[in-house]
Amino acid sequence: MEIPSRLIETAVDQMASLPGVGRKTALRLVLHLLGRTEEQVASFSEAFMQMKSGIHACTECHNLTESAVCSICSDVTRLRDSICVVEDIRDLLALEATGQYRGKYHVLGGVISPMDGIGPNDLHIGTLVERLTGMDTSTEQVEVIFALPATMEGETTAFYLFRKLAPLNVRVTAIARGLAVGEDLQHADEATLVQSLRQRLPYTT
Amino acid sequence: MEIPSRLIETAVDQMASLPGVGRKTALRLVLHLLGRTEEQVASFSEAFMQMKSGIHACTECHNLTESAVCSICSDVTRLRDSICVVEDIRDLLALEATGQYRGKYHVLGGVISPMDGIGPNDLHIGTLVERLTGMDTSTEQVEVIFALPATMEGETTAFYLFRKLAPLNVRVTAIARGLAVGEDLQHADEATLVQSLRQRLPYTT
Repeated sequence: MEIPSRLIETAVDQMASLPGVGRKTALRLVLHLLGRTEEQVASFSEAFMQMKSGIHACTECHNLTESAVCSICSDVTRLRDSICVVEDIRDLLALEATGQYRGKYHVLGGVISPMDGIGPNDLHIGTLVERLTGMDTSTEQVEVIFALPATMEGETTAFYLFRKLAPLNVRVTAIARGLAVGEDLQHADEATLVQSLRQRLPYTT
Repeated sequence: MEIPSRLIETAVDQMASLPGVGRKTALRLVLHLLGRTEEQVASFSEAFMQMKSGIHACTECHNLTESAVCSICSDVTRLRDSICVVEDIRDLLALEATGQYRGKYHVLGGVISPMDGIGPNDLHIGTLVERLTGMDTSTEQVEVIFALPATMEGETTAFYLFRKLAPLNVRVTAIARGLAVGEDLQHADEATLVQSLRQRLPYTT
């Protein structure tokens, strides 16, 4: 479908540059924007520019923040001796939404994926090692929790990190793999069942 | 999921204000934008503002244009005596993509839909009547082609328009309803089959 105006074409190109947005959807969204007032379109556009200029990575954990250090890192009520390693910010938000974790985080910014050309040096692994080296692990028992995706890439990353952290005196754990809440055994995949059997726990009520 | 930054929150709100974009998708898209350079985000944002300030409706047919009259209306090689009535710009683009129509258009900007509170006065019907009244229909045979959706709203709009155009000396036609190319009879709905039977044509090869 040929778009007759260069201005609309550019807008469609930009909209379609977002992941998962095809050209047909982009055109629909762009025409929807055209139906708004100039002021509304300005608010729409400015939101992204303001976000981009105001938001940067936390110097401690690479979470997103408007200040130098994020609200979690600067929260003195949170446990210093527990660092949860996640792939990206959305995983951090998902864990925060549970309200059950009181420690800190470290956002890797991805997982090792040779297929996508992402190696360990593309991730925030060096800063994690630095963070842990800077802590006095002889007096306090530090726990590093791997909360990485249960994929080949996630497992590879966990294994790489585990070896990197081996020389440091830290306890390394990983979140459990198993049956999702509400899931049937017959619908769970075999690998998940194997993991849930291996990771069985004393039954409590 | 609580978003810790007001700037990100605003960006997510704006993204989620687009039709069919939920908050989870909006967050994914917004975080993707955050991964781009400041320059790239500016290009993204400016595309929509420039489009909004540079694009307006054609004074003739309500197609979108950067000048007063759109490229189709100002094209002297296109037939003056054929006006195709469509619901919106995307329908016009879809018809143009076929390359088979050489006349002009009239974009209604919607269809009559009492459920959504859209009446005839919300559509560009008055300007269509004016356009036709302005033409010398005594010397040239003008054809108005209804290319409206095959829905209750589309049919209602066609019927309303048909009555509006009755006093004018114009030939009114409608695009055919029938079996889509590549479609099985057994999968077509009954109403479509009835229409395709009624609108049967002499067989040609």
